[in-house]
Amino acid sequence: MPVNLSSPQAADLHAVPGVRIGVAEAGVRKAHRKDLTVFLLDEGTSVAGVFTQNRFCAAPVQVCREHLAAGQGIRAMVVNTGNANAGTGADGLARARATCVALAGRLGLAPQQVLPFSTGVIMEPLPVERIEAGLPAAIADAQPGHWARAAEGIMTTDTLPKAFSTQVVIGGATVRITGISKGAGMIRPNMATMLGFLATDAVIAPELLQPLVRSLADGSFNRVTIDGDTSTNDSFVLMATHQAGHAPITSLDSSEGRALQAALLGVAQKLAQAIVRDGEGATKFITVRVEGGKTTAECRQVAYAIAHSPLVKTAFYASDPNLGRILAAVGYAGIEDLDQTRIELHLDDVHVATQGGRNPAYREEDGQRVMQQSEITVRVGLGRGEAHDTVWTCDLSHDYVSINADYRS
Amino acid sequence: MPVNLSSPQAADLHAVPGVRIGVAEAGVRKAHRKDLTVFLLDEGTSVAGVFTQNRFCAAPVQVCREHLAAGQGIRAMVVNTGNANAGTGADGLARARATCVALAGRLGLAPQQVLPFSTGVIMEPLPVERIEAGLPAAIADAQPGHWARAAEGIMTTDTLPKAFSTQVVIGGATVRITGISKGAGMIRPNMATMLGFLATDAVIAPELLQPLVRSLADGSFNRVTIDGDTSTNDSFVLMATHQAGHAPITSLDSSEGRALQAALLGVAQKLAQAIVRDGEGATKFITVRVEGGKTTAECRQVAYAIAHSPLVKTAFYASDPNLGRILAAVGYAGIEDLDQTRIELHLDDVHVATQGGRNPAYREEDGQRVMQQSEITVRVGLGRGEAHDTVWTCDLSHDYVSINADYRS
Repeated sequence: MPVNLSSPQAADLHAVPGVRIGVAEAGVRKAHRKDLTVFLLDEGTSVAGVFTQNRFCAAPVQVCREHLAAGQGIRAMVVNTGNANAGTGADGLARARATCVALAGRLGLAPQQVLPFSTGVIMEPLPVERIEAGLPAAIADAQPGHWARAAEGIMTTDTLPKAFSTQVVIGGATVRITGISKGAGMIRPNMATMLGFLATDAVIAPELLQPLVRSLADGSFNRVTIDGDTSTNDSFVLMATHQAGHAPITSLDSSEGRALQAALLGVAQKLAQAIVRDGEGATKFITVRVEGGKTTAECRQVAYAIAHSPLVKTAFYASDPNLGRILAAVGYAGIEDLDQTRIELHLDDVHVATQGGRNPAYREEDGQRVMQQSEITVRVGLGRGEAHDTVWTCDLSHDYVSINADYRS
Repeated sequence: MPVNLSSPQAADLHAVPGVRIGVAEAGVRKAHRKDLTVFLLDEGTSVAGVFTQNRFCAAPVQVCREHLAAGQGIRAMVVNTGNANAGTGADGLARARATCVALAGRLGLAPQQVLPFSTGVIMEPLPVERIEAGLPAAIADAQPGHWARAAEGIMTTDTLPKAFSTQVVIGGATVRITGISKGAGMIRPNMATMLGFLATDAVIAPELLQPLVRSLADGSFNRVTIDGDTSTNDSFVLMATHQAGHAPITSLDSSEGRALQAALLGVAQKLAQAIVRDGEGATKFITVRVEGGKTTAECRQVAYAIAHSPLVKTAFYASDPNLGRILAAVGYAGIEDLDQTRIELHLDDVHVATQGGRNPAYREEDGQRVMQQSEITVRVGLGRGEAHDTVWTCDLSHDYVSINADYRS
């Protein structure tokens, strides 16, 4: 059961003028599943993306990088589930390219104007002929209002589709922002999540899109982890159709730039957190905030050590305030000159440890009370400086093991 | 159920002249458990140790380092289970010291001649008065033949005691080597395991003991992982009583030095591997060998990425040859300039992936056959150089979650 997450309602998701979405059942891995999604983008749309840092990156990720670099203007994207087309060598690259050729041919575009995305099982050949056969139905289905369908179309082990939307007024014009994402295992994004798509009709200088998408990923998808496994297919894409009618944004530091960035980040964070809320087997949503560090990087390093510890995660699952496990993770996070006598630990409002030892005023029943909540904030003070950082994660439950022991069956 | 591991038989464990061991029930955490062990060492015994790199190292680890540095000659060691005395601040240090004072007083030693060890729950006060009360019984129990009792006395979540022994002839004299260890969670030793004690009556120059124990740890305990959690209490101690009667070993590079080192390493590896075989919830024993790297360090880095991946570990638990997960772990292990088209993957004798993609000759049923074994070797070729390294680990099962969700209850 996802943690405090419900299915998006189609009526709550704003269409983004310039973006149409179609979904079809192509039978990539199993029949009768919405497993093929196309995005059709109006001419003039700007697209930027960030992709996995996994050196075993999937074929479609390699093709995405090439096609974005080609600079011919991205006009379509195609997403399949059921097969990641990763660990597939030269043949996998050829199949990813063939998918682009097929969609480009049907739309009268160059193949370099298409971005391909795949998610699912690794090291199996992509059934590109099934995808090609499914494209006409997907194209015919394309509508601006199909964001909820797309959120469903990109799901794998997710139990719920993930979509969020907002509006912001910029330069007197209403700007729409809508995005979708999917998880739910192999989640420790490094530059991006498994798959995230975010669109806006804001008018913005195209050269700002790449720094913007990087900054958004850094503040959202790069702050979540489920199992510490960085996927081969992580991709996060930002589309701007420039159709909102306001004066162009030419700097992210202008008041309009900041307003747009804040609104986009709000949606990106919800999308990223939704992946954790629906993490494989998740029963709790945990915010890990580390403060008092010398640098943001070392705070994030400690936060990830806590968020990845199987012992910490199983203690959360059990609602057991076995909180020394958090101190142990702080200790092995890799800060060489850490002084354990300066460490403070809070669980929500409960002051658990002080000066590296148990807080004399701490009572087990207070820790127990917080551990039973479905949303918990772990706050660690390092006592070394002024930097801080935050990571979001979930617990490790029997269902995580069940889901991943049975995924392919 | 431990993987191919059985209880040691007391008759198979050689007494080491100069070492006597006593065990008692002190009720540290629960009644009617052997939870207190003392080692009594003859005068002249040399002792060296390596300890956790966790910056939140436990109070007894800090005291061990101090007492070894004091150089007064270690004559006794005291080990309690049920409480790790970690995350306990200044009060914890005082309690660790009080334990040494108590044992030293009863033996007519200086407190600096005693090493304390604790293992169990973190961040709870050590009940030092119970330990003190248990010391007379432990001392009265001390016998050279009590290695099997000691292996039982240091267990926590271990399901079986771990002890191994061997003999080697050096300079015409029979040298005895016997050791014990315990796991079974929070296991990703960094310099040492949770607890390991290894003794020999070999005659060896005392200044060789520290490099020797470091080299032994590096070839054994520093090669295993269960859950990636580096403990606050890891300690591995080597004792040499010098009573075997051969001419002193003055160089580890002499033929006698190499013979002793090989015999010690054999026992240390068995002790380290026994921890994995009895890892929390383990159903399989996995050897991860990475070869063709530029350096040993990068091979070990990749091996640990595979050995720590929850997705890889659950696939082993399920006997599911979902082997792309291994490629994904290779990809995110952190080698920046890794060329995925050079990666080879074998599972025992089965050639699974070649040049970064699925081996055309690979058949799923071959992978399935190997995955069903209780002992499996994963062999990854990086195609970058001549270095190689090996790590031992286990799978991730439902029982791991159960054990760690219920540990304190």
